[in-house]
Amino acid sequence: MAYSTEKLSEEKVFKDPVHRYIHVRDRVIWDLVGTKEFQRLRRIKQLGTTFLTFHGAEHSRFNHSLGVYEIVRRIIDDVFAGRPEWNDEDRLLTLCAALLHDLGHGPFSHSFEKVFDFDHEDFTRAIILGDTEVNKVLSKAGKDFPEKVAEVIAKTSEKKLVVSLISSQIDADRMDYLQRDAYFTGVSYGQFDMERILRVMRPREDQVVIKKSGMHAVEDYIMSRYQMYWQVYFHPVSRSAEVLLSKILHRAKDLFERNYTFKNKPVHFYSFFNNQAKLEDYLKLDEAVILYYFQIWQEEEDAILSDLCRRFVNRNLFKYAEFDPAKEYKKLAQLTKLFIQADLDPEYYLVVDSSSDLPYDFYRPGEEGERLPIHLLMKNGELRELSRESEIVDAISGKRRTDHKLYYPADFLFDDTENKEIKQQIRALLEI
Amino acid sequence: MAYSTEKLSEEKVFKDPVHRYIHVRDRVIWDLVGTKEFQRLRRIKQLGTTFLTFHGAEHSRFNHSLGVYEIVRRIIDDVFAGRPEWNDEDRLLTLCAALLHDLGHGPFSHSFEKVFDFDHEDFTRAIILGDTEVNKVLSKAGKDFPEKVAEVIAKTSEKKLVVSLISSQIDADRMDYLQRDAYFTGVSYGQFDMERILRVMRPREDQVVIKKSGMHAVEDYIMSRYQMYWQVYFHPVSRSAEVLLSKILHRAKDLFERNYTFKNKPVHFYSFFNNQAKLEDYLKLDEAVILYYFQIWQEEEDAILSDLCRRFVNRNLFKYAEFDPAKEYKKLAQLTKLFIQADLDPEYYLVVDSSSDLPYDFYRPGEEGERLPIHLLMKNGELRELSRESEIVDAISGKRRTDHKLYYPADFLFDDTENKEIKQQIRALLEI
Amino acid sequence: MAYSTEKLSEEKVFKDPVHRYIHVRDRVIWDLVGTKEFQRLRRIKQLGTTFLTFHGAEHSRFNHSLGVYEIVRRIIDDVFAGRPEWNDEDRLLTLCAALLHDLGHGPFSHSFEKVFDFDHEDFTRAIILGDTEVNKVLSKAGKDFPEKVAEVIAKTSEKKLVVSLISSQIDADRMDYLQRDAYFTGVSYGQFDMERILRVMRPREDQVVIKKSGMHAVEDYIMSRYQMYWQVYFHPVSRSAEVLLSKILHRAKDLFERNYTFKNKPVHFYSFFNNQAKLEDYLKLDEAVILYYFQIWQEEEDAILSDLCRRFVNRNLFKYAEFDPAKEYKKLAQLTKLFIQADLDPEYYLVVDSSSDLPYDFYRPGEEGERLPIHLLMKNGELRELSRESEIVDAISGKRRTDHKLYYPADFLFDDTENKEIKQQIRALLEI
Amino acid sequence: MAYSTEKLSEEKVFKDPVHRYIHVRDRVIWDLVGTKEFQRLRRIKQLGTTFLTFHGAEHSRFNHSLGVYEIVRRIIDDVFAGRPEWNDEDRLLTLCAALLHDLGHGPFSHSFEKVFDFDHEDFTRAIILGDTEVNKVLSKAGKDFPEKVAEVIAKTSEKKLVVSLISSQIDADRMDYLQRDAYFTGVSYGQFDMERILRVMRPREDQVVIKKSGMHAVEDYIMSRYQMYWQVYFHPVSRSAEVLLSKILHRAKDLFERNYTFKNKPVHFYSFFNNQAKLEDYLKLDEAVILYYFQIWQEEEDAILSDLCRRFVNRNLFKYAEFDPAKEYKKLAQLTKLFIQADLDPEYYLVVDSSSDLPYDFYRPGEEGERLPIHLLMKNGELRELSRESEIVDAISGKRRTDHKLYYPADFLFDDTENKEIKQQIRALLEI
Repeated sequence: MAYSTEKLSEEKVFKDPVHRYIHVRDRVIWDLVGTKEFQRLRRIKQLGTTFLTFHGAEHSRFNHSLGVYEIVRRIIDDVFAGRPEWNDEDRLLTLCAALLHDLGHGPFSHSFEKVFDFDHEDFTRAIILGDTEVNKVLSKAGKDFPEKVAEVIAKTSEKKLVVSLISSQIDADRMDYLQRDAYFTGVSYGQFDMERILRVMRPREDQVVIKKSGMHAVEDYIMSRYQMYWQVYFHPVSRSAEVLLSKILHRAKDLFERNYTFKNKPVHFYSFFNNQAKLEDYLKLDEAVILYYFQIWQEEEDAILSDLCRRFVNRNLFKYAEFDPAKEYKKLAQLTKLFIQADLDPEYYLVVDSSSDLPYDFYRPGEEGERLPIHLLMKNGELRELSRESEIVDAISGKRRTDHKLYYPADFLFDDTENKEIKQQIRALLEI
Repeated sequence: MAYSTEKLSEEKVFKDPVHRYIHVRDRVIWDLVGTKEFQRLRRIKQLGTTFLTFHGAEHSRFNHSLGVYEIVRRIIDDVFAGRPEWNDEDRLLTLCAALLHDLGHGPFSHSFEKVFDFDHEDFTRAIILGDTEVNKVLSKAGKDFPEKVAEVIAKTSEKKLVVSLISSQIDADRMDYLQRDAYFTGVSYGQFDMERILRVMRPREDQVVIKKSGMHAVEDYIMSRYQMYWQVYFHPVSRSAEVLLSKILHRAKDLFERNYTFKNKPVHFYSFFNNQAKLEDYLKLDEAVILYYFQIWQEEEDAILSDLCRRFVNRNLFKYAEFDPAKEYKKLAQLTKLFIQADLDPEYYLVVDSSSDLPYDFYRPGEEGERLPIHLLMKNGELRELSRESEIVDAISGKRRTDHKLYYPADFLFDDTENKEIKQQIRALLEI
Repeated sequence: MAYSTEKLSEEKVFKDPVHRYIHVRDRVIWDLVGTKEFQRLRRIKQLGTTFLTFHGAEHSRFNHSLGVYEIVRRIIDDVFAGRPEWNDEDRLLTLCAALLHDLGHGPFSHSFEKVFDFDHEDFTRAIILGDTEVNKVLSKAGKDFPEKVAEVIAKTSEKKLVVSLISSQIDADRMDYLQRDAYFTGVSYGQFDMERILRVMRPREDQVVIKKSGMHAVEDYIMSRYQMYWQVYFHPVSRSAEVLLSKILHRAKDLFERNYTFKNKPVHFYSFFNNQAKLEDYLKLDEAVILYYFQIWQEEEDAILSDLCRRFVNRNLFKYAEFDPAKEYKKLAQLTKLFIQADLDPEYYLVVDSSSDLPYDFYRPGEEGERLPIHLLMKNGELRELSRESEIVDAISGKRRTDHKLYYPADFLFDDTENKEIKQQIRALLEI
Repeated sequence: MAYSTEKLSEEKVFKDPVHRYIHVRDRVIWDLVGTKEFQRLRRIKQLGTTFLTFHGAEHSRFNHSLGVYEIVRRIIDDVFAGRPEWNDEDRLLTLCAALLHDLGHGPFSHSFEKVFDFDHEDFTRAIILGDTEVNKVLSKAGKDFPEKVAEVIAKTSEKKLVVSLISSQIDADRMDYLQRDAYFTGVSYGQFDMERILRVMRPREDQVVIKKSGMHAVEDYIMSRYQMYWQVYFHPVSRSAEVLLSKILHRAKDLFERNYTFKNKPVHFYSFFNNQAKLEDYLKLDEAVILYYFQIWQEEEDAILSDLCRRFVNRNLFKYAEFDPAKEYKKLAQLTKLFIQADLDPEYYLVVDSSSDLPYDFYRPGEEGERLPIHLLMKNGELRELSRESEIVDAISGKRRTDHKLYYPADFLFDDTENKEIKQQIRALLEI
């Protein structure tokens, strides 16, 4: 039997708190889960620093990746199988792309990529196509197979239907993370009737569409997404932890560039500091390694680095104030000046963070970030864009919401042993 | 107002997936949660290596500690408050002991303590009484207060009722971990009607007792405990990961004692290798640090250490066979000999692991591990030991169940490039 | 001790699937639950005919009434107690009004009241003030007490805060029924974080307000309400059963007025047919009695009555088509003519049903159906109307949505044994 | 296409709170659900009078029957399909038997059958084989098909595997009702991991067996069953309602036999009073009809009948005392005498009720009530009886537990307006 169609002698299951069980029958999938590149995802948290706000959110990307796979498997095996619009030859391709879509994520991805200026999607591609265990498994299933999987994940594949199952405004990725993040944080907002949505999904040439009768379940899903963004993902305290993380990496890089002598050499970071990170370097990184450095950097002589690390490790976060850039840019300038006078480097201790989200968008061809809209399949066979049918979705469609906050170390500002008067001025400006 | 009775201006809550919300009103509790020793528990998993079997089980001891606190708070504030048998002066003492009862746990406690021969309870005591942030907070609440808290946790306190809330056969510790571990692993076994049990708890001088009308809820709790032990805690695959972990630590210590030169000096381990670990050394350890070493040890020259670390990091675990020591000791000896011939050190590659549990026990005074039985409060005011009233509990009471398994590296045994014949003999003996 | 403040010697609990337990401590509440007028609510379904669409929805108003009581109890005892804005003397009044707010509901209220032209709220008042067991209990708690309870339920009480707990756009009534109806139907839409909402409720002189920090939980509640209306309460199949029910009652009344001779005299209906129903008559009615008549009316000689009853009892419902009155009024007239030609009385067999809902409204003083808006309590102590702060609520605020359907007996229309050609014309018009 | 294999053009679903969705693809199943005999099950409560103890337990046998069907469907379609031991020709037979297994249940079956001395299983058979809509549908699927279905339900079929899916110590019937009754009552005891059990079920010639790896899930199921029996089904208050119900029927029959003149003729009961009930009479009965009579019988002149009916309708139940027949038979005789002296007919007002259960039994061939044990399928292919492998099951296996209670009208006994002294003696004996 060809490796690509080989089945395990007996179905294997993973116990999963969100989907109850994750079922694996395909040899290729089983082998991929066993690769060290996939196992590495166990050491990368799904929600980065969010566990410092919601203590339950300690789950890893390994969890989530299995979940996305399982949702796609159910769509294919339970809903699409046998439908003429679905080509079952794409089954394995879709399952592999689902399982591996987050493979290139690094530790605390968001901040890490920003500070060191790269895109984890490049590493996803590199892992799939490079000299890795994952590549070996995929190549065994077909010479071009790794390239095909990479294209689906990169959204450059011609198989638009397959792409839409994994990356669209209603895809398996989102459906898993909303439910999973809700489960582990303990908030109730992420719940929606996924089983219903799966049952009304229909394959079309270009994308997956939703039978009209499932519209309300989709509305509920979009509201869940909206709530999860503002209640969990953009929670101001989580963003505070993210600010700290980002500033630590920033400071370490800065010190390195200024030839500062670290007590313990941060060898795992060198290639990132130099902008020359190779796949091999990247794969050695995980959150344990990062946290190890944060731990030992608490004892560095550089006051800023050691302070920021102590804050992160012991969860002594910055506080925040509302900030309206359009109206308060002068106040920010003033605060900046005062922070310098108070001997607090504003680069690290006075930080504006902005979050912005578009809960759903219809199609705006040619515009940046153009998004494929959700289409409803009407009884007469026509397709209608969701916001034309749903009042609720129409009401929020295309409306970007943005929130700005100003982060600062309250404990320092209340410590009047030095620069008392300046700090009083700062506090007055911040109204604290 | 005295610090020990000071309330926060507004109640604080933590969102918790198991208890929905954890409520904090007391300044002392709030301050304890903020100490770095307590925050350290975020970096120690509640179930050690179990996440390699149940991928959801990535939750920390920080989670669990808050949960135990919350259960005790509900018992005191919602059930005991106002009852003449309960002395409300013990409230803060009980809450602090609940919150801090696991404070001394280190990374992967179980194996770590066994290999380096110490007891985490000594470190709990050391943290509470030593030069720590936790001690500062407790001391502020009363000069003798740290000592009192330590005594409750150590079960040496005269306040037996308080002790029984935290350590007995039906205590807040167990009630939290059964539910929490069930939630995060996704198994259904850990569920029982805790709300019912809390409502029927009554304070008595020596211990908390249970109103007879709640007996069935207690039966259900004991069955949950039984199932969780055998389905989750003693799962043979988790034990396989634990075997690996223990053997890595063992090997590293052994190499150190034989003056092996590590590529990277394992400075965090020195005091443990030397049996001279101080509180300061201990507090620097967490699972990130341990995992960091396992990562870099993959590149050590010692073949055993690097192999074991690679196995752990990439989840390439040992397989297992049933093993009956009473009948198969000769087979074990024979296998040992063959492993040596096959160049596989049996110390590291042929491991017997035994698990044993006593789901519930009545009182056996004077015997080792004597346990306080659960008492039912009958309508007429008498107390009756649980197993005298419950047929189910009686059926399993005092019956120790033990399970032995033999762990070995199946991949090595099937690699016939060397020692082919010996390996064939081994496989024949293991029936694989 | 005064009866109005008397406590039970031990708290009583009801096991409730929605709130887990319902707690009763007050003697008055316990005695009210035991009255025969309150027990009668067990024989009236919460959702009338909805069980014919969602088979789980067989729960009674007894369930719901206890639920509303429990929510109010938690607000008062866990959140309001001790706050200066809350007058604890209103506690019993609020609890009683919550428990009894639906007391006057009759069997299949909605249709029953419309056909026989009365308002169940008048009967609620009559039960509370009349010669009933409920009145006896309330009077024992205070001479004016029944009147006060009746005023709160009728929303004529001066105690606006108390009224708003039971009747407003975010009251205990709605919070219970959304969750309860979701639980019993099995849909997921009705879930929202009630515990969070309760915790952020604050008493103000005129109404209960919501702390700003709980706004997202309120948004979620409003979306739940929206979804439950359109997914469950206005489900076209449930409305079909309601159409049938209404037409049965209508037909029976009509026959009575035309001096038709019933095989079994419908004595329980006489006073309703005559528009002279007294409290005593009303209390004898419940859904068992109604269903009994529907059963025996299956054997009446009147073809319409017996047909409609057989349809209801055996769930052989009318089918439906979309209907737009503005555009299709001519089609309706044409169908009416054809139905008459086909010997199908359009009064009973061609029915337009309209449903309409306003998910949330801000204040429109003076307008019909004016509704008290939800107010958010800002950090600075100001109150802001919800839709001014919430984009989502703003988007749907004040927007009435209406749906019309045309109901008809498809089986008759496809039975071509008689009037074949006319039926073909009807089917062509209905596009079936 | 043959009717027996005809599929609906599109799968239909019922929303179900326990199994989320119930899926119907087969035309035969869809048609059976639509028959009036099956719809009748909506008017019969699954748990009879239990709703008077657990107010949520208002669900009907219609619910449960769909649930049993769905479980069997999943076993066949998701687990058995394709296995050589399973003959897919039995699929429709099994589904129909599952759906219809409770078809012959009447209103408040348990008491009704005892008083009028018949077995609902005879009516199940009569409905399936008689002149009914159900029979028409089944006959269309095959001439002998109704007989085959009836044999499976009656356990006389030669297809033992099919029988065991519906009636054994671990069948779809029990798995549905434990979960469903737990859901609607709100107790947590009925939960077990059904998905796990279904996945480890394997077809064997004579019965369904369970793979050894699923043993713990089965243990949990047996404990759930044990707890549901004693916590819910045998709850002393539910039994009190059942005693009342039974005594009402008993009294009515007795009055009829003594030629008592009822104010309203109980025509629906005549054939039962005469022991001549035909299928036609039986099908006209449901709980609405029974409750209608209980309502109007409140106004009968016979003091006992009207009193018992008032008690039932208004939930004014008998109280109970523990009773040990072996030790207290003399006390019972004494009480009987005193009741007569106090003018309380002991036949109706002093009732011993006994409940007895055997949570699991191994095979005792030839003994009365012999039960097929659960067999585990070991790795080597052998079968082992469950209690030989499971310590917990062994501990409770074959142990019958019995409970006796003595029911009496406490309100009468405390009403000292008449027979004061005798009542005092009674109360002294009852220790109330």
